[in-house]
Amino acid sequence: MMQEVLPLLVFQTDFTYMEGAVASMYGVVRSVSRDVEIITATHDLPQYDIWSASYRLQQYVEFWPKGTVFVSVVDPGVGTERKACAACTEDGYYIITPDNGSLTHILRKHGIAEVREIDETVNRLASTRGTSVFHGRDLFGYCAAKLASGKITFEEVGPAYPVQEIVTMPVAEPVFRGTDVSGIIEIDDPNFGNVWTNIPLKEFQNAGYAFGEDVHITIEVGGQTAFDEIVRFDRTFGNVAEGKPVLYNNEQMNLSLAVCRGSFKKTYGIGFGADHIIRIGKTNA
Amino acid sequence: MMQEVLPLLVFQTDFTYMEGAVASMYGVVRSVSRDVEIITATHDLPQYDIWSASYRLQQYVEFWPKGTVFVSVVDPGVGTERKACAACTEDGYYIITPDNGSLTHILRKHGIAEVREIDETVNRLASTRGTSVFHGRDLFGYCAAKLASGKITFEEVGPAYPVQEIVTMPVAEPVFRGTDVSGIIEIDDPNFGNVWTNIPLKEFQNAGYAFGEDVHITIEVGGQTAFDEIVRFDRTFGNVAEGKPVLYNNEQMNLSLAVCRGSFKKTYGIGFGADHIIRIGKTNA
Amino acid sequence: MMQEVLPLLVFQTDFTYMEGAVASMYGVVRSVSRDVEIITATHDLPQYDIWSASYRLQQYVEFWPKGTVFVSVVDPGVGTERKACAACTEDGYYIITPDNGSLTHILRKHGIAEVREIDETVNRLASTRGTSVFHGRDLFGYCAAKLASGKITFEEVGPAYPVQEIVTMPVAEPVFRGTDVSGIIEIDDPNFGNVWTNIPLKEFQNAGYAFGEDVHITIEVGGQTAFDEIVRFDRTFGNVAEGKPVLYNNEQMNLSLAVCRGSFKKTYGIGFGADHIIRIGKTNA
Repeated sequence: MMQEVLPLLVFQTDFTYMEGAVASMYGVVRSVSRDVEIITATHDLPQYDIWSASYRLQQYVEFWPKGTVFVSVVDPGVGTERKACAACTEDGYYIITPDNGSLTHILRKHGIAEVREIDETVNRLASTRGTSVFHGRDLFGYCAAKLASGKITFEEVGPAYPVQEIVTMPVAEPVFRGTDVSGIIEIDDPNFGNVWTNIPLKEFQNAGYAFGEDVHITIEVGGQTAFDEIVRFDRTFGNVAEGKPVLYNNEQMNLSLAVCRGSFKKTYGIGFGADHIIRIGKTNA
Repeated sequence: MMQEVLPLLVFQTDFTYMEGAVASMYGVVRSVSRDVEIITATHDLPQYDIWSASYRLQQYVEFWPKGTVFVSVVDPGVGTERKACAACTEDGYYIITPDNGSLTHILRKHGIAEVREIDETVNRLASTRGTSVFHGRDLFGYCAAKLASGKITFEEVGPAYPVQEIVTMPVAEPVFRGTDVSGIIEIDDPNFGNVWTNIPLKEFQNAGYAFGEDVHITIEVGGQTAFDEIVRFDRTFGNVAEGKPVLYNNEQMNLSLAVCRGSFKKTYGIGFGADHIIRIGKTNA
Repeated sequence: MMQEVLPLLVFQTDFTYMEGAVASMYGVVRSVSRDVEIITATHDLPQYDIWSASYRLQQYVEFWPKGTVFVSVVDPGVGTERKACAACTEDGYYIITPDNGSLTHILRKHGIAEVREIDETVNRLASTRGTSVFHGRDLFGYCAAKLASGKITFEEVGPAYPVQEIVTMPVAEPVFRGTDVSGIIEIDDPNFGNVWTNIPLKEFQNAGYAFGEDVHITIEVGGQTAFDEIVRFDRTFGNVAEGKPVLYNNEQMNLSLAVCRGSFKKTYGIGFGADHIIRIGKTNA
């Protein structure tokens, strides 16, 4: 008899490793199954930041084998009325998460074929019923371990509800008017200090831009100009001098801003969000 | 022949991943055995903080399968006279650790059936005998890998010594006088900034409190009042308004203080320790 | 038929877990092979710090089984002309890395038998050809997964080039003149705040020093005296009083400076580098 290969079980949370939360959650998984592989995507998401949780999933889910089960727990409303759910994307990935906006980007990029509310009466760790604040351990981790190890089917997670009822956050679209291109700083790279726009490289190139040219960039934050410079547009930050800003194509194939061997965020004091408007134009405009 | 399933090998230290210590330690484990599963509980315990090491073990050990081998290395006295030991709890878990107080909470919660001093003449990595400062790699990790992979039995770790000789730290007990309840801030959640008391929910409820009521809380730190407010007692922090403090039942089933989507620690400048006295009373008292 | 045991796949980068980079990279590995074991050495190397990348490899590679494949990505020049390579050490380890100095210490300590430039036309993830900034995911991780899982041989990585062409950084040697010993602060322990010299214990002992004696230490940083004290030379930091500096033998068998239960770096404001000259002499000199 062939042994079936179990799906992978991948975790992202904002728990950090500063206390025992991750160890408790992974212990529950191992008590459900010794065989399912546990992989840490990250436990260092920004605290309470559902937007980052949603964005990161769409950043990396596509690189995993179909059938992988992802657990995403950024859950400031744990224990309140928000649903706990399991979603199956149209291309066959599973996401176990609070239905609090965390599925926003996955829904847009992958589509969601089916979503089910986790039935706490059977898919919650029975010994922890007295506590309401650690669904990563007691509900999401436990239910995901049962699903990934084949102890329950997707249907047994709980009752389906309409995909249209999934909680989403508004996502801005870039605007192209000839060579005038605008969008938002959609997210950052909090490590290297880059900021990532929602403007795809291909559409930017179609608007008439080519690697190697200088472009005029302004960034408005809450209506105030926070950045107004001529910046090189290039394939990589390594092609400009150390300390210089650069507009480059990031690993999501979106325009991003970096400082070579530095931090754009720190150098210019710029974060991200719907009120961070970026405008790009020709230098001779 | 059935293949025996090896026990899991779970690590907690204060090493961080900032240099090569964890990689060296895990390399030693893999050189002993390719088959034992290595799991990171955390390498981000507060530096030199034996209390946290002890508390975290009791927080998560119970969620793991019986037989799991835990390695706990917060070891400011490495290379001095403190014992290196392996303990077997009464319910069948193994802890490999410096005997420096790290077993305090496990001893109280699980009981320790047997403790053995690691025999360095056979259970230390021979090639590293010239150095005295990295027992995580050379002694605890190496010995635990041998134990978990079945290369040595628990008896072969080294000679047993009386459980009564295990080094422990004093642990405070909560006090109940009618509806006047007092205890200490026993530990924090350094990530979300919650503080966790040593007062169990059940005894607090037995003293006459119910979810949803407001209670009067004072915290004295070193004899000075550091907090004196009326606070909502609820199941979860998500049930109060953003930025508001809340007394809730944490995942250990102990009373804790949080700020909804904020940090209680930062907002009120309160840490933890035996001199952090919390008193809870009725609001009409 | 015996199942062959695959080599381990060990990663070190400066990516952190703050965003989705590690999850993307590991997803690519798992899409290449479900069987190769992924181990995190660290993703917390100092940003852009090729020296640390190089030093850490020599710190831990020796503790792993022969044949292990290491991926090292500290790569500020990603997408520029620097080579992407795979090296095989003389003792049988593989390192997949940008050829930007990251092999400096490994070359000195282990020797490199053969180095090959990764052929991007076959060993790069085809779906990501439009982006130039994430070789950890698209090139190093992907190619290493193919190598470790046996999908390609070492020869199939790409064309060999002369070992003499490997990019290296200058490494300082300690100097011994009787009992006057000098060297540099070669690296730090950024966690505990120790600083590690390039002076081997054995040669220092051969110069006439013994554990337990006090020695006279000066440190010059950029020509300015930054430290000038009488310090105990001992086996471990735990043997001096809390808060006191100590010269001890670190886990690399090199002289290091620590403060007992404190941070030498913070206490004395001393970092590391070629311009951090340490001189050690007898106290009666």
